Amino acid sequence: MRLARIATDSGPRPVCLRDGRWHEVADPFADILTFTGPAHDVDGARLLAPSEPRVLLGMAHNGAPGDRDLPLQAFMKSARTVIGPEHPIVVDQRLGKVVVEGELAVVIRRTCRNLRPEDVPSAILGYAIGNDVTAVEQIALDDKLTQAKHGDGFTPLGPWIETDLDPGDVPIAVRVNGVTVAEASTEQLAWNVSEQLVHLTRYLTLGPGDVVLTGCPFTSGPVEPGDRAEITLDGIGTLSNPVRAL
Amino acid sequence: MRLARIATDSGPRPVCLRDGRWHEVADPFADILTFTGPAHDVDGARLLAPSEPRVLLGMAHNGAPGDRDLPLQAFMKSARTVIGPEHPIVVDQRLGKVVVEGELAVVIRRTCRNLRPEDVPSAILGYAIGNDVTAVEQIALDDKLTQAKHGDGFTPLGPWIETDLDPGDVPIAVRVNGVTVAEASTEQLAWNVSEQLVHLTRYLTLGPGDVVLTGCPFTSGPVEPGDRAEITLDGIGTLSNPVRAL
Repeated sequence: MRLARIATDSGPRPVCLRDGRWHEVADPFADILTFTGPAHDVDGARLLAPSEPRVLLGMAHNGAPGDRDLPLQAFMKSARTVIGPEHPIVVDQRLGKVVVEGELAVVIRRTCRNLRPEDVPSAILGYAIGNDVTAVEQIALDDKLTQAKHGDGFTPLGPWIETDLDPGDVPIAVRVNGVTVAEASTEQLAWNVSEQLVHLTRYLTLGPGDVVLTGCPFTSGPVEPGDRAEITLDGIGTLSNPVRAL
Repeated sequence: MRLARIATDSGPRPVCLRDGRWHEVADPFADILTFTGPAHDVDGARLLAPSEPRVLLGMAHNGAPGDRDLPLQAFMKSARTVIGPEHPIVVDQRLGKVVVEGELAVVIRRTCRNLRPEDVPSAILGYAIGNDVTAVEQIALDDKLTQAKHGDGFTPLGPWIETDLDPGDVPIAVRVNGVTVAEASTEQLAWNVSEQLVHLTRYLTLGPGDVVLTGCPFTSGPVEPGDRAEITLDGIGTLSNPVRAL
């Protein structure tokens, strides 16, 4: 099933794809969706970020060989960095080089704490494409990543949430201006989605709509103002965003 | 002026203290408050956290001598950690020692980016008491502070927002079970409020209701389940929270 959020003349609405159209639903987190009536053509629908997380987390060092020898580690991202498809990633060139990072994004379904592995599937609403944009030269200046990770539009999310996806081996491709700059798979993640959520919920509570960016298995590439970044995850789709200067 | 949020039978409401009662207002961030009619006695009013930040930041190493020789540094906290007065700080004893940290909390009034010093006063709605609870033994295990800072109830905030306060020299007292365990002043902060907001908004956008915990000038003390932590800031009031086990 495919869930999204679209802009309508009455404001943002959660929607579900059915019979080729986006149908408005009451609550995308409900066990059984209630369709409220209005439907929208896919062509011309203005997609927003499919979730508005209160808590947005990214996994650190989770994609290189040897990363499994390191402890799991996560960092918080500002919820204000989340944007939808086609919204601009805003680059402040004073902060140095900026890269896009194509990642599988987990969208949480319900309040969860101290998850056991067997409880993880029911805690997940679905998966979207996440782009963990990073001003990489700031990492050495600030190990808390506050300077590197929170620029405007630094977390493109979308284009929708796919609820039926096996997260274990999802091919990821990153294109800049139409040129493929990186290809990999979630199979290369050092710690998988289940292990990540068990780890995170040992330390904090996640809730409906929260998002975990699961890590970057070398799926990154540099961008500059004027570029277009596209992340494709097989089984979900393509998330495309322009890059502009601050 | 004193702004708060209270629980009513119709749900949470923003309120302003006038003539000794809490009067409901339409929008606490408006330039001129609109009073919507209902008022509530101060006695018996159930105070909530006075703001629901989308972005919650804490300042690292900002209270010890020599901290001004280090670069300004901030960390994100989960917005889900915010609680109001009398709500419990929940301690997971598996994570080791937990401390409360009494701090001046800045509440942001409007969307701001790249603030100049002269723009800072108009960007601030007011000041509350913040308690930056920390599982200190986790810091050595996770320099991103995700394991240390995000427990349930780890950011008591309140009891209200005081809009008329000079943040430069606010005495802070921390009491645990009625015993004073720390006293200091915001004068001891290495980097002041204006410098903090200029720094932060170089890297990220803040918006209405966002909160910055301005740093802990040794205003901390250990707590255990069963304790009560009280933070007093002169000119604001006292924020009191019980501590319980997970």
